[in-house]
This record gives sequence, structure tokens and C-alpha cells, in this order.
Amino acid sequence: MNETKQTNSGQTEILLERRQRLLGKAYRLFYDQPVHIVRGEGVWLFDSDGKKYLDVYNNVPHVGHCHPRVVEAVCTQSQILNTHTRYLHQNVLDYAEKLTGKFPDGLDIAMFACTGTEANELALRLARAKTGASGMIVTDHAYHGTSWAIAQITTCYESGEKRGDNIVTVPAPDSFRGLYADDEQAADKYAAHLHFAIETLARNGHRPAAFIVDTIFSNEGLPTVPPGYLAKAVEIVRQAGGLFVADEVQPGFGRLGTHFWGFDSHGVVPDIATMGKPMGNGYPISAVVTSADVIEAFQRDSHYFNTFAGTPVACAAALAVLEVIEEQYLQTKALDTGKHILDGLQTLAANNHLIGDIRGSGLFIGIDLVRDRDSREPATAETKRAVNLLREKGVLIGSTGQYDNILKIRPPMVFSKEHADLLLEKLESVLKLVRANPGDA
Amino acid sequence: MNETKQTNSGQTEILLERRQRLLGKAYRLFYDQPVHIVRGEGVWLFDSDGKKYLDVYNNVPHVGHCHPRVVEAVCTQSQILNTHTRYLHQNVLDYAEKLTGKFPDGLDIAMFACTGTEANELALRLARAKTGASGMIVTDHAYHGTSWAIAQITTCYESGEKRGDNIVTVPAPDSFRGLYADDEQAADKYAAHLHFAIETLARNGHRPAAFIVDTIFSNEGLPTVPPGYLAKAVEIVRQAGGLFVADEVQPGFGRLGTHFWGFDSHGVVPDIATMGKPMGNGYPISAVVTSADVIEAFQRDSHYFNTFAGTPVACAAALAVLEVIEEQYLQTKALDTGKHILDGLQTLAANNHLIGDIRGSGLFIGIDLVRDRDSREPATAETKRAVNLLREKGVLIGSTGQYDNILKIRPPMVFSKEHADLLLEKLESVLKLVRANPGDA
Repeated sequence: MNETKQTNSGQTEILLERRQRLLGKAYRLFYDQPVHIVRGEGVWLFDSDGKKYLDVYNNVPHVGHCHPRVVEAVCTQSQILNTHTRYLHQNVLDYAEKLTGKFPDGLDIAMFACTGTEANELALRLARAKTGASGMIVTDHAYHGTSWAIAQITTCYESGEKRGDNIVTVPAPDSFRGLYADDEQAADKYAAHLHFAIETLARNGHRPAAFIVDTIFSNEGLPTVPPGYLAKAVEIVRQAGGLFVADEVQPGFGRLGTHFWGFDSHGVVPDIATMGKPMGNGYPISAVVTSADVIEAFQRDSHYFNTFAGTPVACAAALAVLEVIEEQYLQTKALDTGKHILDGLQTLAANNHLIGDIRGSGLFIGIDLVRDRDSREPATAETKRAVNLLREKGVLIGSTGQYDNILKIRPPMVFSKEHADLLLEKLESVLKLVRANPGDA
Repeated sequence: MNETKQTNSGQTEILLERRQRLLGKAYRLFYDQPVHIVRGEGVWLFDSDGKKYLDVYNNVPHVGHCHPRVVEAVCTQSQILNTHTRYLHQNVLDYAEKLTGKFPDGLDIAMFACTGTEANELALRLARAKTGASGMIVTDHAYHGTSWAIAQITTCYESGEKRGDNIVTVPAPDSFRGLYADDEQAADKYAAHLHFAIETLARNGHRPAAFIVDTIFSNEGLPTVPPGYLAKAVEIVRQAGGLFVADEVQPGFGRLGTHFWGFDSHGVVPDIATMGKPMGNGYPISAVVTSADVIEAFQRDSHYFNTFAGTPVACAAALAVLEVIEEQYLQTKALDTGKHILDGLQTLAANNHLIGDIRGSGLFIGIDLVRDRDSREPATAETKRAVNLLREKGVLIGSTGQYDNILKIRPPMVFSKEHADLLLEKLESVLKLVRANPGDA
């Protein structure tokens, strides 16, 4: 196998050396053989050799890499004005109006930040101010961001930092793996852990401020959630005085096809929703959407300002993204293309027992690779090999889940059935290869 | 007086109503009569009536509002590619090299974030990992950002959030006001407070992780720092095992004229420097610069990724900013123009006793307004009135300091002597007016 051949005459080595020297060792790269991407267009990325890659997992370029409408919006506004929210400006209001219009009544206030981390930070501060409590309940393999407080509720990474006793985890509601897989009472049983969490917080001297979940449980591996789980869980938290924060950074903006927001797919309305990555198609912008009631306590004692947040340029980019989603019916398209992918994967699965489970919605799909369909032993090494082989074959995909054995399909929303067919074709050959040589994995 | 007349036929009222309804009440606006800015160019801002304002305090548009070089860099790169740091890309390395080249030897690693808050978050996490300690020492009227942990070390705002007992304040080293004003031993006396802070932390069960200061003490009112203070203070902190974090968000990038970074002006080399606002001339980018030694402990247990940070577009913007600073000699220009402003202010002060003190360096100048030169009673209301009158006369300026009695001059770095003369002229007439009618204040 020649899985690690150099892409470009020494250039990669030079970049790797500079990178380690200039950025230090806390940064990571994707793939055994890192990719040197120099250009992007729609669902395509191009490396410095001109090699073309189908982008199957980047969700930041939501309406496609370098979408001309978004680029145009950024360029035009950048030439005119880019200040802050301490002056009046129309863009932040137009965008706030359009964004809150996508939410159920009551969730009608938008506050802006620059990153998903900052949006979750603000949500946490709002929840603490509103409830007067400090307890946080999170799932056990969640990603919510990188700041000190948010790294504390990011449970998917080990870090040297001790977690506060105000943070308690509950198991992710996974119907395929985990504590209550294949259990008809799974919704109730998983939800009961919220009671346990609240009891643990109480023993530690805390009341719950918030229960925060990524509403598609991306980092937990996109589990099929037992129907009714989230509504039950949220009810328990609310009875104990806590808020429900829906982290929509990954599921939001129509990706799931069936709904514009992940919480909608669970039939639950959050107290606070946070969003980020896809909002500006790469221009840094994030937001919290909530109610006047929730911010009341916070604004009494604190004010809020974030220099780069909600600027005329950021809001121009975000407005363009929402317009493209609507005008090109990208939510419906995600649903259609997603069904096409799911159907194709079912066909693949009939002939390849590596595929243990297929799940997801719209353009957010997980393929759970297993060593054995009965034991469901996660095929972690095989998944890694598949990811690297696909990269060689011009398909950029990632993996997720507690065991890193779930191929994650989360492409730009302009991903079409033709792109899906190419993905399925490459997947078929790579999974066949991986399955035929499990020893290589 | 007609200081609050409406600028634009009802439009302002409509924007204000929409703003309160859509963004909620935690947001604040500048000025009694908010400004509706629609265009910016160089040092000029224009409102929706076409009225022109001289921008005397916005530091984010470092090389001028909508600088064509930076706009061009953002537009060009946005059309080509905007991904993240998990692929190889030249821009982040070229910028890291150029940026770290501006620092003393040893500070040769750059890590990227999106906002000053995020840069300070990362600095705090690095310092905690490096020292194994959690104590933070900050000055008593400092601004460092908006996240949970950084709001805790932001001491200039009251908030409903209780400060942890791992955070201890020391008085800002002010030669004009404060504990040791006009005291020849001020440097030693202020520095001794670091001993007291370390003792307080010890009583609370903490060792110091870091002493963090904005190296021009912007929010403290740009005090004239007793010579030698910072070196003494840092030495005490280091002896107790803590690091020194220089928050260069405001003083950095040549603004002080004499030095490229604020720490340089104190003759102290930090363990970690953080920077933000002016870096990308408005495009969201921030950074931490430090040594391999400092990040060693952090990278052993944690990795670092920030979706929108260090992207090809962000680094293109930041590279353009550094190039413009160099090619147009903006640091030297800041020094010259700053001297011209300081001279002009001295002349004004001869005829206007509202001016109690003039201080600062390069294009970062404070005018301390007093009710009485002997008592130095802060002329807080008068300062507010001057700010609002200047806004009416087409000059946008702000105030700072514990008593909000210091006019803050911190314009884009392309501010020229001609702009300075216009500022001085308007200042003279407004301060005369305010002094003549103190009762109105």
C-alpha cells in the first residue's frame, strides 16, 4: 500500500516543519498525510497539485465554498463600512429580524458573538443569571467549544483541566449503543439520568442552571435518539428550575432537511438556542437566540458588547447565507439528497457487513462501522483507514463518536445527488478494500 | 441648548425601537443621541444624513476605515478559499512568521483565535497548565473580555456574577491619582501590592498562575506609570511561580509610536502576549504569542482548535495590516502625530483649567478633566458633556478611566497632523463651552 505518498515535491514537508515551529504542538491536522488545500468552490476543494476533492464533511461553507453571493456581500460591505454595535446600523437589525423569524414565537431576541464558543459562553452566562444557579448538565461525549468554561462542558476530550463539581454528565441517548441500546424503555431510562444528575448537583451544593445539548448529538456519533427522550429530559430539568440550551451550531440552518433547527426535530422549544459555524459561510459570526424573559436578569446587572460581533460585514455575510438557503430551497434539497444517500448506503450495507448502522437526517448522516454486526464492536481502526483511503481517492470525510468509528457525512448544503453518487461509488470501493484486508487496519 | 436634536427624520427612532425589540436590553449605544453610521473611509465616518465625523477613538480600523489594501486582501482570498487550520495553508504560516518576527527572541509561537476575549481565554488556559496554579492577579479597573472566565478578571464593570476567590486585584499604577499619586516611591509601593495579592491568594488556597495587564492600562485611564513599576511587579509574580501576560489588544501594533508593543515601553518581556482588535482592521482575528516552553504542558494534555481562527482570509487581512503599518511607517507617524497632539493640548491646557493632566504616547492619549487642578476632582459630568458636544460638532471621541473623566484619543493610525489640528480646534471650543457652563454638565 502506498497510502502516505507525498502530494507535492517536498512542499508538504516544508509546511509541516514551519507549522510545528510557528504554531507549536497543540495544533492537529486531518489525515495521516495532511492535505494542502489552496482553492475551494461549491463542494470541491483543490490541493496544491491541482488534485480535486469532494468535500463531504465541511459544514462551515454551508452554501458552498466561496459562494459568490456571500463573497459579494462581504466585499461590498467591507468597502463601505465595518464598525461595531455601539452605533446604529441596519444590517444587524435586518439580520436579527430574519434570524429570529426562523424561530418559534417567544424566541425573538438575537445577541451576537463571533464563534460557537462565545455563543455558548453567553448562553451559559444568561442561564446562570436567569436561574441564579451554577449547575450544568451535559452529555458524556459532547463538544461545545474551547474557552475555560466551555472546555469544562466539552466532555469528548480529555484535558489536563479538572472539571468543576457544578458540571455533571448524562449518557448520550443512543438507541444503537450504550446503556439502553435496543431497549423499548430507552427514552424513559435515558431521561431518568437527568434526575440522577440533578441529585448529584444537589449533593455538590448546586442547582441546575442549564442542560445543554447539541440537538443532533454530533460528537456522540449522531445516535438515533429514542423518540420522546429530549422532551422528557427537558421537562425534568425545567422542573428543577434549569433552562434548556439547544446548541444548534452543527444541526442548524436547515441541514437536517426535515426541520430548520435540530430542536424542532425533537418537538422541544429551548429557552436559549446557540448557533455558529455555518452562519456566515466562514465569516466569523455566531449568535444566541432567546426571549426577553431570559435576558432580563442578565441585562439588569451586566451589559454586553463584543467588538467583532454583529458588525455590518458579519451580518451582510449571514444575511446572504439565509437568502441563498431560501432561494435555492437548500433545506428541501438537503432532505432529498440525504434520502438518496441513505438509500444508497442501505444498498451498500447489504453487501458490506462493516456497515453496522446508518442514521441521520438530511445532510447529516452517520455510518457506524462495526467489526461484527452481532457484537457491534466498533471498527475504529478500519474507520480511520477508510477516512485516509477516501482522502487518497479524492473524497474528504471525517469520523466521529465515542469510538471514532462513525463516518460523518456533513457536506456543504449544495451537495447534489450526482455528488452523492460519486461519494457512494468511492465509499463502496474503499469499504470493500478495508473489509477485504482487515489486518491492515 | 439643542444637544439632542434628531439627526434624520424619524429613522433613528425606528432603528432604536427595532434594536431594543430585536437585540434586547443588554446592548448599549454610544452618545446621548446615538449615531447612525453608514460609511467609513480612513479617519472619517459618515452618518445617514451625509454628516461627516472625524474618528478620534476607533482602534479596530487600525490602518483606517475600509483600507483598500485590507479590503482587497479579504475579497481576493474570500473568492479563493476560506477553510480552517486542520489543512495545511501558507497564509497562517506566513502571518505567524511575520507576527512572531515582531517579538523578542523566545516569543516565537503564535496561536490564533477570533477575539481578544478568546486570546485571553487561551492565555489563561496556557498559564494554568504551565504553572499548575489557578490564581489570577489583575488591576482594579481592567477590561479583558466577555466570557465567563474573562469577565471574572474584567474588573471595570460591575456584574451580577460573583468573582472567584482565585482572583485578586491590585491598584492600577497611577502617578496622578490613586494611592500613591505624586509619591516618589510610587513604583515600589504599587509593586508591593503584588506581594499582598500573592498573600491573599495563598490565604484562599491558591498560587498565582498569572498577572495580566493591559500594558497601557487603557481602561484605568492611561495612567502615567511610575518608571520601573511593571518590571518590579513582574519580578515579584515570577518569584512566586506565576507568569506575566501582556494584554496588547489596545496598545499593540505600533500605536504607542515609541514601541511596537506596550510591554516594550516598560522594558519587560512577557511570558505570553495577547492581541486582537486592530489585527485584521475589523476582520475578526486575535492571537496569543508565547514560547514553546509555555505551551509544553498545555499541549501534552489538550489540543487546540478554533474553527474561524487563523483561516486563509483572516490571515490575509492581518498580513495586509502589518504590511501597511510597515510600508506607510505608521508607527513613526503615530509618534509624530501624537507629539503634535500633546503639544497642542499643552497649549489648550494653558487657557483651560478643565484640563488636569495630559498623558499617553503616540496615538493613545488621555486628557484628564478635573473640576479643580488642586483637588483633581474628576470632572465626570463635564467629560460626558464634552463627548456629546464633540459628537455634535462632528468629532467622535470616547472617555475612559475609573471616573470616566478622561477623554480618550485613540484614532486609526492614519490620523495626520491636519486631522489633529481639526481635533484641537473642536476640543478648544467645546472645552471652553463646558467650562463656561459647568452648571449644565
